[in-house]
Amino acid sequence: MTLYAPRPPARVLGVDPGLTKCGLGVVDGVPGRPPRLVAVGVVRTAADDDIAARLLAIEQEIDSWLSEHRPDTVAVERVFSQHNVRTVMGTAQAGAVAIICAARRGLPVALHTPSEVKAAVTGNGRADKDQVTTMVMRLLRMPERPRPADAADALALAICHLWRTAHPAVAARQHSMSGGGT
Amino acid sequence: MTLYAPRPPARVLGVDPGLTKCGLGVVDGVPGRPPRLVAVGVVRTAADDDIAARLLAIEQEIDSWLSEHRPDTVAVERVFSQHNVRTVMGTAQAGAVAIICAARRGLPVALHTPSEVKAAVTGNGRADKDQVTTMVMRLLRMPERPRPADAADALALAICHLWRTAHPAVAARQHSMSGGGT
Repeated sequence: MTLYAPRPPARVLGVDPGLTKCGLGVVDGVPGRPPRLVAVGVVRTAADDDIAARLLAIEQEIDSWLSEHRPDTVAVERVFSQHNVRTVMGTAQAGAVAIICAARRGLPVALHTPSEVKAAVTGNGRADKDQVTTMVMRLLRMPERPRPADAADALALAICHLWRTAHPAVAARQHSMSGGGT
Repeated sequence: MTLYAPRPPARVLGVDPGLTKCGLGVVDGVPGRPPRLVAVGVVRTAADDDIAARLLAIEQEIDSWLSEHRPDTVAVERVFSQHNVRTVMGTAQAGAVAIICAARRGLPVALHTPSEVKAAVTGNGRADKDQVTTMVMRLLRMPERPRPADAADALALAICHLWRTAHPAVAARQHSMSGGGT
């Protein structure tokens, strides 16, 4: 009989959505311990393939990651506004596929803005990509830089989600500082 | 033995994607005859539901329309640019769900821009919503205006697809006139 079972690790799949490169990263979090890298990768689809084939390829890959790694939650980047509408479209489409893959399995989906992710991982909501990658490497004790940057961003999203869930008060403070809305 | 079998009717599901209202319209096209209305409707999701629940509801409804009406092709509105990024996001997300539902069943997906649809149905790529609805009613001999406008737009998309497929030369001319790109 286990009276004092430790809180089980929470496993998060982070998705940095994109049509050309969709970053995927799985991280385990145990309270009081550094997050642990489980898997990292990227789904690439060819720009000259039609949109249906691209979204289907992304769906199949995310589905296979969900089957293999069985995360408890899927964290997806929430995009508010970007200058390039075409990029926003691709991000929204790939993000919708990730959300629907998770929802179909009954997994909770969490959305975090880029500034929330940066603030969680580096302490600065306006950190650059390089700084985020460096912190992700340190936090997960990775010997090499995850490439491409989308893979590092997916890991940062997963870490952000673990920390915001573990420390809601800190997260709320960061949220209000980073000017995030709904 | 049938030597001169007539070309079978083509059935198209048109999808006017949106999170709050996603228009769906099924139209049959037989060469040399007016298009025929099969079904029209709209999927509504509540703005205060989370995005995962909304996309899942849209997926389930589109899947059920595909099972019931068995279209040969799914035509989805292609969005290039709009001023409101939030609207673009919702359109892109709901559109991605429609595309993935079709692709998963191996159905071809066709994308048409709003100006292509307007040009096909009214002859004017800059026609207003009211004009599009009026022409859809006439073409499909509907006794009442389809409501909401998203439902009429979905029917217009399906008609546009039937006509552009039947008359590729005309479609190409309209396409170049409407300034459509990839």
